[in-house]
Amino acid sequence: MTDLRQSLPVALDASGGDFGPPPLVEGAVEAARSGLKVLLVGERVRLHAELSKYPGSADLPLEIVDAPDVIGMDEHASDVRSRREASINVANTLVKTGRAGAVVSMGHSGASMASSLLTLGRLSGVDRPAILSHLPSRKGFVTLLDVGANADVKPAYLAQWAQLASTYLRVVEGKDAPSVGLLSIGEEDHKGNALTLEVHALLRQMPGLNFHGNVEGRDIFLGSTDIVVTDGFTGNIVLKLAEGEARVLFGWVRDALNASLLSKLGGLLVRSSLRGVAARLDPSSYGASLLIGVKGLSYIGHGSADARAVKNALLRADKAAQTGLIERLNAAMSQAGAATASTAV
Amino acid sequence: MTDLRQSLPVALDASGGDFGPPPLVEGAVEAARSGLKVLLVGERVRLHAELSKYPGSADLPLEIVDAPDVIGMDEHASDVRSRREASINVANTLVKTGRAGAVVSMGHSGASMASSLLTLGRLSGVDRPAILSHLPSRKGFVTLLDVGANADVKPAYLAQWAQLASTYLRVVEGKDAPSVGLLSIGEEDHKGNALTLEVHALLRQMPGLNFHGNVEGRDIFLGSTDIVVTDGFTGNIVLKLAEGEARVLFGWVRDALNASLLSKLGGLLVRSSLRGVAARLDPSSYGASLLIGVKGLSYIGHGSADARAVKNALLRADKAAQTGLIERLNAAMSQAGAATASTAV
Repeated sequence: MTDLRQSLPVALDASGGDFGPPPLVEGAVEAARSGLKVLLVGERVRLHAELSKYPGSADLPLEIVDAPDVIGMDEHASDVRSRREASINVANTLVKTGRAGAVVSMGHSGASMASSLLTLGRLSGVDRPAILSHLPSRKGFVTLLDVGANADVKPAYLAQWAQLASTYLRVVEGKDAPSVGLLSIGEEDHKGNALTLEVHALLRQMPGLNFHGNVEGRDIFLGSTDIVVTDGFTGNIVLKLAEGEARVLFGWVRDALNASLLSKLGGLLVRSSLRGVAARLDPSSYGASLLIGVKGLSYIGHGSADARAVKNALLRADKAAQTGLIERLNAAMSQAGAATASTAV
Repeated sequence: MTDLRQSLPVALDASGGDFGPPPLVEGAVEAARSGLKVLLVGERVRLHAELSKYPGSADLPLEIVDAPDVIGMDEHASDVRSRREASINVANTLVKTGRAGAVVSMGHSGASMASSLLTLGRLSGVDRPAILSHLPSRKGFVTLLDVGANADVKPAYLAQWAQLASTYLRVVEGKDAPSVGLLSIGEEDHKGNALTLEVHALLRQMPGLNFHGNVEGRDIFLGSTDIVVTDGFTGNIVLKLAEGEARVLFGWVRDALNASLLSKLGGLLVRSSLRGVAARLDPSSYGASLLIGVKGLSYIGHGSADARAVKNALLRADKAAQTGLIERLNAAMSQAGAATASTAV
């Protein structure tokens, strides 16, 4: 059983994204060179041509699955309903039918979410899937959700996400009793908005959840909790602010190191040390975010993903597939069902 | 008229805050040394003792106004209703009665807001005052509101805040037609949550407002717009995340510079250049945030404010008082009243 699961390839939507196949195929080739099996889903002729640029790629564990259509970055997410031959739909179907262990997409985010939701369905006990992402923190990294799948929410959604993320960290990162913080505007229980006050009450009563209480914006980079739960509006702003701020601040540091002859000389001496900090802040190191709550592994990344991000996303997806994450999430949500789904929707 | 206004002192709540009078008095002394008139509001005996530590302070334009009571950091904001002799109430009354041009408090934020609201009242056309703050950006700085006064909001509040902030930047910073961005999760007009979609429609139709459209989390540090409008829940998280991330990232840079002998040497050479970046990110450089929408100038800062933050807050408050900001806000809101207050509350 374990062997069978370990042998499943990861399906990559090799057509979607801002730059089309090139960075996607390059990332897949790199992942395949480290032993990963990848199904490249897209236009067969185009992908063949792209693959032929890599000497020896014929011997790698790569296979093309033809999908003549692609949902463009400027098209409607709802198009996934009618365009069954779109690469993202074909890729999700490979997971649904058990031919792939996970799907990775750098294409139209809304379409990727919709396709996974429609094709794979929701886990029982989950009202809405969420996008789970990571940010660097003083303790290593923090797990944040929802970062954008649900702009408007109900309290029960957040309670379910807390449960899903806890199971995720337990299974994939081997973290015992991961701590959960509810993003709010004051650490005291009674501080927050109408939504967080209701969610707080739900989380307090959830059995088996290591609920730390409210956390504030500053706690994210401090790593005060392993998990930070919030609605998809706030989470998306947090993620984009955090990534954008890191980029601007690092730009300022770079400028400062070029400000004078003396600082340029110093800059040469500190460059390799600073490179480690930059790497820690690079969103490409995570590759893609997990759409958690659907009945299958679905990773969704930036349209502008480079080959490194694609490779890292494929490796992450494979790692999660090998742990049997979906089965574990399913079991956890079935147990927790009574405490969340049915209480406050 | 201008001379009279220029001669009004700034009232400082010299009792509130995490550390009591010491940093408050020190900041006031520094501001007074640069010519600013300050009314120190608090326990007369205690403040006298504190002032006597500074040689020559008797000759500075400092005056003590006795207020025997103080609302502690762990007391209830609603206490301002009954405790009229609390320092924050006495300080606000000095503004109300025309004895001071502005009030600055580093005490209990909720109590400071409540006291200003109760004592000074709202400007006509303003449903709820907001806290206006600044963050550094690639273009200099960005003006963000609300950063915490209103956890739950109605669309009209944000429309009013956009108007208030535009007038503020015009009057205090001399910025012509400042651009306004609505914080959301996608640049397209139709992206956002239920709240921002309604606010977007309101802002689009406001005459005289330079509405840029939606902005995302990443736009804040890019400085895509002069002003970013959001609800007090999201804004508070943005502010605390931004400040917290800057602190953690700078800590990592500092660690990297100490990582090896070579990087330590380089660190010595780049130190002065990096100090400029650190200063740009230091929240103390702004000192305090403006409670905008009340009939009087009220600045509210961190309980942990140091003397430098206190001094900068006093200078900012005085600058705003000299521009006649309140009269200008009042005029702007009277004109805009029809377009905001009455439409969508």
